[in-house]
Amino acid sequence: MSTLQKQPDLPEPAYPEVDSMLSRRFGKEVANYFAGSPLNRLGFLRADNTFLSRAVKHPSTSFLLCNELQPLVEPNTPAGQGKLHFVKYEDVKPVIGEDPWAHPEEDQIKAYNSEKYIPQMIFLGLDEKVTTGGLEYEGKNLYKGAPYFAVDVTPRESVGSACESLLAAQKEKGYEISKGRMMDLDPSHAAIYAAARQLLDWNARNPYCAGCGHKTMSVNAGFKRTCPSKDVANNASERPPCVTRKGVTNLSFPRTDPTVIMAILNHAGTHILLGRQGRWPPHWYSTLAGFAEPAESIEEAVRRETYEESGVLVGRVVVHSTQPWPYPANLMIGAIGQAVPQGEKINLGNDPELEDAQWFSLDQVREALSNGVSGLDEPAGSKYKEGGLRLPPGTAIANQLMTAVVNGVFTGANSKI
Amino acid sequence: MSTLQKQPDLPEPAYPEVDSMLSRRFGKEVANYFAGSPLNRLGFLRADNTFLSRAVKHPSTSFLLCNELQPLVEPNTPAGQGKLHFVKYEDVKPVIGEDPWAHPEEDQIKAYNSEKYIPQMIFLGLDEKVTTGGLEYEGKNLYKGAPYFAVDVTPRESVGSACESLLAAQKEKGYEISKGRMMDLDPSHAAIYAAARQLLDWNARNPYCAGCGHKTMSVNAGFKRTCPSKDVANNASERPPCVTRKGVTNLSFPRTDPTVIMAILNHAGTHILLGRQGRWPPHWYSTLAGFAEPAESIEEAVRRETYEESGVLVGRVVVHSTQPWPYPANLMIGAIGQAVPQGEKINLGNDPELEDAQWFSLDQVREALSNGVSGLDEPAGSKYKEGGLRLPPGTAIANQLMTAVVNGVFTGANSKI
Repeated sequence: MSTLQKQPDLPEPAYPEVDSMLSRRFGKEVANYFAGSPLNRLGFLRADNTFLSRAVKHPSTSFLLCNELQPLVEPNTPAGQGKLHFVKYEDVKPVIGEDPWAHPEEDQIKAYNSEKYIPQMIFLGLDEKVTTGGLEYEGKNLYKGAPYFAVDVTPRESVGSACESLLAAQKEKGYEISKGRMMDLDPSHAAIYAAARQLLDWNARNPYCAGCGHKTMSVNAGFKRTCPSKDVANNASERPPCVTRKGVTNLSFPRTDPTVIMAILNHAGTHILLGRQGRWPPHWYSTLAGFAEPAESIEEAVRRETYEESGVLVGRVVVHSTQPWPYPANLMIGAIGQAVPQGEKINLGNDPELEDAQWFSLDQVREALSNGVSGLDEPAGSKYKEGGLRLPPGTAIANQLMTAVVNGVFTGANSKI
Repeated sequence: MSTLQKQPDLPEPAYPEVDSMLSRRFGKEVANYFAGSPLNRLGFLRADNTFLSRAVKHPSTSFLLCNELQPLVEPNTPAGQGKLHFVKYEDVKPVIGEDPWAHPEEDQIKAYNSEKYIPQMIFLGLDEKVTTGGLEYEGKNLYKGAPYFAVDVTPRESVGSACESLLAAQKEKGYEISKGRMMDLDPSHAAIYAAARQLLDWNARNPYCAGCGHKTMSVNAGFKRTCPSKDVANNASERPPCVTRKGVTNLSFPRTDPTVIMAILNHAGTHILLGRQGRWPPHWYSTLAGFAEPAESIEEAVRRETYEESGVLVGRVVVHSTQPWPYPANLMIGAIGQAVPQGEKINLGNDPELEDAQWFSLDQVREALSNGVSGLDEPAGSKYKEGGLRLPPGTAIANQLMTAVVNGVFTGANSKI
């Protein structure tokens, strides 16, 4: 093999100038909704308070405001083109203070006071496509672009009235805190919001140390929680020893729960296994899904969840694509699998999660992907014929998996299976 | 498409009789070390104390004993054929008691006493290949096989002397608690141990509720921790409200941290990017790896980690296989990626994790896979020539990824890329 050969049915991918380090999509790759962030996270600068302090005050910097995890958005945008509305340093300063990263992290930990409320901030990354007027920071390399932060502006504690004033001023300008799940954003804004939501939520959900029961504090620009050894609120007396203070521990880092979601074909490759929950609208089905468990591979998790929910026994499993899902912290790993010949019988008696599961022909699924997709709480589209199969929209990885199957990706002459 | 077409270069996979619901491997699928468990977990029976009570006392049941997370093993087994040694109910009864699941879970939670030490047990699943003499349990379906449990027999608290007696009796018979990482087990025992270790460790690491700071208790046969509303040790007075008591919360369930590990090809497909840490033996390299972060797809995590550690910019990413890694709770998602033409320059200046990273030719890697593989703390094999490239052994997914690349899987005429 001297060069990577491409699939004969695809054009040679064009590689344009690299306009951002990490945000482009490639070849046959499916970038699912909530993935595809335009930002370079620069995780190695999260403990660098000089960088953070400069970034927070820079004129090119954007702040995403979240109230109870819901973001500030532009009003009246068409579906799929929703926009987050970002504010500037001067807007948010009354909430976050003049310079939240004035001091090195080490000093902030020493000054930890469990009774002092600090609104949660997250450093989301740099938009490197901004080449004019952006921040330039000389670390070991030169980093250039427009910084993005998320700020929790839920009106509470010492910043209650500052948050209320900020939100009122934005409302005056026509911007509003959104309601419900954010499934109608422009894809790049969806990815920015996903990171903001998941990290704000993780910090809020984990105020106490699971290792010792004491309160923890947010460090690393929102990407770590540490269990300080002293607390100013308690006369700075020494706290009991905590395992999280020795070496690296996963308790200190954000949690992401891997889940599996799978389009399962029968052995002949003519039908797809879909299931439905009782609370879903009539005729609405989706691919089976569930959490991966400790110490199993994704391939095993796909087989186990399919067996538990439907009784179907799966052989070969191939991963298709993945989708972050920030409600609250899932990583959906999308797979395509094939039933074994003796394992196609549906049995809902193991785990009573599904109301029904059925084998649908590829033609039925193809038809429904054209005419019957909608969000769970949306009406079916105008092309939908009552009684026909309904399926999730393109923002759901379930839809992308079924689309790949009916288009013969993974199962045709250049099979991945 | 009327049938699933197989890769022309592979024989049609044989589908033997299904001898176990979930444990077989299929076609081109790579089952990595620590995956491929022979047990059906039957997760939906974990809250069924009637099932658990019968399983724990059944003559076909096997108990894996762990002391400080290290398992009881058979002595003097050849590398790759190591065996866990399982004991019987009568052996372990002095530690776990007559019937640890005598009462429904609901009643156990009501009787919660934070000062009472209960040795941690995990229900690992049923070996359904055991068709004679196994447990038969009629739930909504009929479940048959030999049950497996893990038990924490670390000598401590009220069971200190019972654990010591049990371990001494096993030592007398020639069985021993192992030392170090368990990388030499027979693959099916490796998978059983991985689940035991990860779940015992998760329970031990999380004695307190991250939501409210109070002590939690293990339920669901070791797969859940709950924050009881009352504690007998505190006069059964009502505890403060806790968010984990309302609805479903990820804080109650075991944590698994998704990580990415990737064989990155240069754009022409002639070289693989490998890196090394300073503490590794000379000439020892491996594929790059790192934790997935909140709200990014696996494909994005592969690109970000490769950029952070090596400066290389990656285009297309395809998942190859996955590997559970119970030290302490990782799920390694193995991928193969391709650098973009302008992104092949190595720059170690971003994240100082690696001492070196280099592009190695496929021939160099092929040669090292044949003659230079060993564990990190093992000597190189007899065929190794001093100064040559050294690589991780076949139990590491890194080795499987490189093997797939040099064999042309994913990159040949039937490319997955």
